[in-house]
Amino acid sequence: MKELVRDITSRDVDFAKWYTDVVRVADLVDYSSVKGSMIIRPYGYAIWENMMNILDQEFKKRGTLNVQMPMFIPESLLNVEKEHVEGFAPEVAWVTHGGNEKLEERMCVRPTSEVLFCDHFKKIIKSYRDLPLIYNQWCTIVRWEKTTRPFLRSREILWQEGHTMHANREEAIAKTKEMLKVYEDFQRNYLALPVIVGKKSDKEKFAGAEETYTIEAMMYDGVALQNGTSHYFGQGFSKAFGIEFLNKENKLENPYQTSWGCTTRMIGAIIMTHSDDYGLVLPPKIAPIKVNLIPIGKNEEVLKTMEEIKASLDKENITNTIDTSDKTPGFKFAESEVKGYPIRMELGPRDLEQGVITLVRRDTLEKKTVSISDVVREVETLLDDIQTNLYNRALERRNSMLYDAQTWEEFLSLANVKPGFIKVNWCGDVSCEDKIKNETGYKSRCIIEEEKADGKCVCCGKEAKCKIYFGKQY
Amino acid sequence: MKELVRDITSRDVDFAKWYTDVVRVADLVDYSSVKGSMIIRPYGYAIWENMMNILDQEFKKRGTLNVQMPMFIPESLLNVEKEHVEGFAPEVAWVTHGGNEKLEERMCVRPTSEVLFCDHFKKIIKSYRDLPLIYNQWCTIVRWEKTTRPFLRSREILWQEGHTMHANREEAIAKTKEMLKVYEDFQRNYLALPVIVGKKSDKEKFAGAEETYTIEAMMYDGVALQNGTSHYFGQGFSKAFGIEFLNKENKLENPYQTSWGCTTRMIGAIIMTHSDDYGLVLPPKIAPIKVNLIPIGKNEEVLKTMEEIKASLDKENITNTIDTSDKTPGFKFAESEVKGYPIRMELGPRDLEQGVITLVRRDTLEKKTVSISDVVREVETLLDDIQTNLYNRALERRNSMLYDAQTWEEFLSLANVKPGFIKVNWCGDVSCEDKIKNETGYKSRCIIEEEKADGKCVCCGKEAKCKIYFGKQY
Repeated sequence: MKELVRDITSRDVDFAKWYTDVVRVADLVDYSSVKGSMIIRPYGYAIWENMMNILDQEFKKRGTLNVQMPMFIPESLLNVEKEHVEGFAPEVAWVTHGGNEKLEERMCVRPTSEVLFCDHFKKIIKSYRDLPLIYNQWCTIVRWEKTTRPFLRSREILWQEGHTMHANREEAIAKTKEMLKVYEDFQRNYLALPVIVGKKSDKEKFAGAEETYTIEAMMYDGVALQNGTSHYFGQGFSKAFGIEFLNKENKLENPYQTSWGCTTRMIGAIIMTHSDDYGLVLPPKIAPIKVNLIPIGKNEEVLKTMEEIKASLDKENITNTIDTSDKTPGFKFAESEVKGYPIRMELGPRDLEQGVITLVRRDTLEKKTVSISDVVREVETLLDDIQTNLYNRALERRNSMLYDAQTWEEFLSLANVKPGFIKVNWCGDVSCEDKIKNETGYKSRCIIEEEKADGKCVCCGKEAKCKIYFGKQY
Repeated sequence: MKELVRDITSRDVDFAKWYTDVVRVADLVDYSSVKGSMIIRPYGYAIWENMMNILDQEFKKRGTLNVQMPMFIPESLLNVEKEHVEGFAPEVAWVTHGGNEKLEERMCVRPTSEVLFCDHFKKIIKSYRDLPLIYNQWCTIVRWEKTTRPFLRSREILWQEGHTMHANREEAIAKTKEMLKVYEDFQRNYLALPVIVGKKSDKEKFAGAEETYTIEAMMYDGVALQNGTSHYFGQGFSKAFGIEFLNKENKLENPYQTSWGCTTRMIGAIIMTHSDDYGLVLPPKIAPIKVNLIPIGKNEEVLKTMEEIKASLDKENITNTIDTSDKTPGFKFAESEVKGYPIRMELGPRDLEQGVITLVRRDTLEKKTVSISDVVREVETLLDDIQTNLYNRALERRNSMLYDAQTWEEFLSLANVKPGFIKVNWCGDVSCEDKIKNETGYKSRCIIEEEKADGKCVCCGKEAKCKIYFGKQY
């Protein structure tokens, strides 16, 4: 097992290499013969299943209905909304032949499904009584990325996409923000990610949206990962598609639309926020296996006690696995660390004599000896501790990389020296946004809606309109 | 609501039209602008979610691990196994361009994923210790069908595909049969389908398989629906892909493979087995909503009592919906029938005075008046009754359409007059199978493994090798 650990590049030496080492060594993904597409292996997929289950419940609590749309979009349908097609056409995969025959009209594999939902909504929306429609689908989308990295950027993306239609603007905006809050709460409470939420600049908006709200997570290296977005479309698509409903005043009106999505990229965010040079670190609330039981030696009493503890954990629905293989304890410990099981449990004959057992928490690698009779309670407490500690640790690190820049010189010196997010006053002009990006590589992350501008634009010195974060991004 | 009912063609007048009427009127699907692809609407998708949840649990109980493979297959990878590519190449969708660039090698959208799994297995299988590998994925596949019908035959198919690798032939065959049994039990116990299971003839086998086992369901009109298959591949793919493992004797060996899949077609099977001229009929165990509560009038006490009953049902996890809309009771009753809610509950002021409530079962439309204080228990009993009755009714009908034919004349007279499955002795020659198909439209359904041949081949008169069912198919 030492080999495994040695296989992981140090996070502080080469973060990009460290990341791909961790996803590989922890058996999360495998590369495939299909360029730009990855295989999500059982352990990686189990994390995604946990994410899907929790989010799906949150969606359903809020009246969301799951559906399934076609995976193909005929070119003419993609072309209906102008901004949308301009944004997506350059990065779609085109199907041109079915069997041996050339198609009359080529179709792309969906890069997102706004146009498919609108095409359906047009048929089923007639009156305000049909609204709101709150739909979601779990599916795979395709975007023809040039460079790809497991979970972060991939030609095929597993995600959910919610699509809703409302009778008025206020309700649609409220839904946009409600679903953003669902993502925020999920990422804070389950993934232990201290995310920053805000509004995208016009330049960074989703193609066709009036407003895009975003979840921005900061990785260990200070680089941003956009980790979920929620869009308000106004009536743009509904006008382009001719979707109309009879409102309460008996007049025809175009409905107001939202969409919101998050992807397996969240797995990448967990890794790049919490993991370390020993391998994966998973927040207990999302970990497929919470406790790894390792009996030391072949002592029958030890094995029997471990099986009893396993049964007690099972009873409390604390997922666990027991390692009775022939590998050495040292190998098993290292493997447990690579896989990121939140707690490792070690029991040897001498421990048993004394009625104690050792718990090793993955986040700090600290050991704790507890009474066997208390072990389930101790595990529960420790899992809570780990969850809280991971969040607090990430929050502290994130806060240490949040900066303010009042002047262009301050901005340059921060951008060139310290990784992180830089908060600035901004005039709102895309020319300043472009200049910052071109000269520093920092892109606008999100407009901070709770704060007001309190000075001049950091770039041009004109009156600022808002506060905004800039940062490098994955 | 009368309009809705009137919209349904009678099942005995035009079965095909009746079917598409039911799927449309019950809001299960919508047609899309994407030729050959359907939209699965919330009510239809909720049925599929129930199916996925139950099957996924059964898979996991048997050690199955979920994964996610790429959705594209490069042409060279599809070409590795000869029979397989011959079977599938004519019916795949080809992606030729990514964005504005022509791909160096075209890729098809997976019609099934054997080659993708093998490509991965080759990398991860080294020793007998790595076996068995029991993988599954829930995904969408594409087969370029010329004619399509909702749920039955579609260009895009939602399904699961299990793929396993084993260290020996016996274990792989046992897995093939184990998963067939999972399908059979699920379809009998949850979908109330009295399915027939057996082995496909060589001609009807899956492309590349040594043996294909099948679940054959008989629809109301006597026509067969192949409703799940499980394949044993032997070492065909593992040899073609060069997958090898070091066996216990420390020798290199090719592993033994299986795959098994079932699709949303099962929703079609439920409809065509149980539903009637009033709309959908769903087995309670798979119905998204088991009880539809309809208060008669606006009486506050009635509404209050209905809400209390709803709360009691919720407590017992009996899914239900209450209809307090302005529609007339007659309209609500008809809608309840169209949607196939297993039980409709009617409560009016006079019922309330007498402390009783009316339960209407969807399968027989029989009414029953029960004491309000007993209503939850009565509902539970009635749901069980409906589930059992649907199975027995379908079994009785199916049995009435199972025939034996000893001679070619008998076969012709049955095939030309009575819809159903015809059991015959068969020599095993594909020429006889072809002749039967060409002259009667009956295809071989499955070889009956429990019965031995007891006469001459029904077609050629030579010594028979087995008993087999023939039938028309969807």
